Amino acid sequence: MGEQTWSEFEIIDRFFSTIQGHLPGEVIAGIGDDAAILTPDKDAPLLVTHDMMVEDVHFRGTWMPPDTLARKLVKVNISDIAAMGGIPQFGILSLALPDFMEKGWLEAFSDGLKGVFQEYNLFLIGGDTSRSPGPVVVALTLLGKGGNGFPVLRHHPKAGETLFVTGTLGDSSLGMKILNRKGTNSLTEDEAYLVKRHLDPTPRVSAGREIASRHLASTMIDISDGLIADLGHLLEGTSLGAEIQVESLPLSQEFKRVASKLNDTPETLALAGGEDYELLFTSSISPDAFTLSSPTPKITPIGHITETPGIRVLKHGTPLTLETGGFQHRFHQKG
Amino acid sequence: MGEQTWSEFEIIDRFFSTIQGHLPGEVIAGIGDDAAILTPDKDAPLLVTHDMMVEDVHFRGTWMPPDTLARKLVKVNISDIAAMGGIPQFGILSLALPDFMEKGWLEAFSDGLKGVFQEYNLFLIGGDTSRSPGPVVVALTLLGKGGNGFPVLRHHPKAGETLFVTGTLGDSSLGMKILNRKGTNSLTEDEAYLVKRHLDPTPRVSAGREIASRHLASTMIDISDGLIADLGHLLEGTSLGAEIQVESLPLSQEFKRVASKLNDTPETLALAGGEDYELLFTSSISPDAFTLSSPTPKITPIGHITETPGIRVLKHGTPLTLETGGFQHRFHQKG
Repeated sequence: MGEQTWSEFEIIDRFFSTIQGHLPGEVIAGIGDDAAILTPDKDAPLLVTHDMMVEDVHFRGTWMPPDTLARKLVKVNISDIAAMGGIPQFGILSLALPDFMEKGWLEAFSDGLKGVFQEYNLFLIGGDTSRSPGPVVVALTLLGKGGNGFPVLRHHPKAGETLFVTGTLGDSSLGMKILNRKGTNSLTEDEAYLVKRHLDPTPRVSAGREIASRHLASTMIDISDGLIADLGHLLEGTSLGAEIQVESLPLSQEFKRVASKLNDTPETLALAGGEDYELLFTSSISPDAFTLSSPTPKITPIGHITETPGIRVLKHGTPLTLETGGFQHRFHQKG
Repeated sequence: MGEQTWSEFEIIDRFFSTIQGHLPGEVIAGIGDDAAILTPDKDAPLLVTHDMMVEDVHFRGTWMPPDTLARKLVKVNISDIAAMGGIPQFGILSLALPDFMEKGWLEAFSDGLKGVFQEYNLFLIGGDTSRSPGPVVVALTLLGKGGNGFPVLRHHPKAGETLFVTGTLGDSSLGMKILNRKGTNSLTEDEAYLVKRHLDPTPRVSAGREIASRHLASTMIDISDGLIADLGHLLEGTSLGAEIQVESLPLSQEFKRVASKLNDTPETLALAGGEDYELLFTSSISPDAFTLSSPTPKITPIGHITETPGIRVLKHGTPLTLETGGFQHRFHQKG
């Protein structure tokens, strides 16, 4: 079989220029021109988000297959658009790759990209490919548009509103713990579920669109840094606080069974573990009356916004103290 | 002074959220929300481009100060918008940084970014900051809009049209040779000029806009991979070719004086050296009649489009054979 080599242009031609069939009419120029040209929707605001994933920081090559990496890169960006109640549309891909890649890496990465682009009806309109002298770096800029109703912004919660989340919390961070402990081999069914929740999350596009278009929330965010950290972001710039009931946090059966066998405190993972990619939002609608048109994802009330600043976590009425930094990393400059 | 440390959020807050004063009205949400929200111009197409720069691939930390790195990252992206005849507007910045940065690196980088954003009236609307276990990686997605007249696309040259370039060619690649040989110390005035052309190029925004709005060109591209490689891109998808007269290539006095002392063939640098960030375009207007409203940059006819496929380079009528790969790097997969 020998070694295969490609130039940057050949990579674009072979793996990325044919990722979709026909571009929609609003794309006047895509990959291969200096810049992509779009005719934006005149009636919808334009949404733009960007996320980067770096090998050995956000993932390990040993447990992140290239097709899954492509899917996750796209999905974490989609999640940001979902949190605005928007519709994802166009991707700009950026790759920095070491000189020597494993056989089949590019094929698998572009297959993964193609699959997730088809699933969400996205189009690749541009990007850049470069050498990396170190880790694999992948990044995506995702453009989207607001749907019916205006996108839901952060920073406008009101005291007394209920805090809701979609789906279940903590699966992803427990999945990552499993990966770091034992990799992807000989996983139990429960462990495999949690690992999949980490590697291949589900952005809540439909729920986000319905919440925005029916004006059900005053503010919404996706949970990427961890519930507490992202709740902190929601409260930024206000003098408000929040109270969370730990016993209300939605946990999957798989999470409960696996976490009970570990030394970890399950609530810490659900409160502070990151990368859930569920939606967190505040609403003045009462928990009993709140429903979406689909039963999936489940919507769970977990607490409320308070006049008192700060975030309080209560377990059966008793305040908990937590180390909750989310996924924050500290950068240093030599003094 | 001791060591300073910042979290990702603190970096964004401290160095990037205040990079401009007030955002224009069309930016509804910027840095700090899940996604940026814009109300795009209803009458202008949206342009999107992206470029990534990786340490030890595109630059060396020893000769690329952080403020210059920021300027160059922005300018290479602006150049792509300029080649469409467009107006650059909004940037999305992506940084992957090693844990330990030199003192003052982030301040200098954000100062450089602020300077070039002000110079070109750009606004930072989002991005992502990450750790890097290896090189510094910086990337920018730049949004812009078409100006008067539609953006100029590639791929539509016509046989018989004249090939024009702005400015001078080869300065940047000769500047990079100087940097690789002796770094930035004890440069002559000529060498310093060429090094500056490499580190701090001048995207041709005004020229691009005028060429597009006055419909002076049928196709246009910016020269980033090298004249021959980018001319190849212009001809892609056509059955046409081109002929270039070497003696017509516009060379700066500094280039001529420095190149004459080296063993390099000056024409090879001007033909195949990359990162000129000048505009290359084809026009049916005769060279004698072609003028722009400003004398800077100079516009020079260098050849013409031919019915015969392939690119021929003539020196006083005699064909030259060149090794002209441009800046292409080859990626490998193990077989």
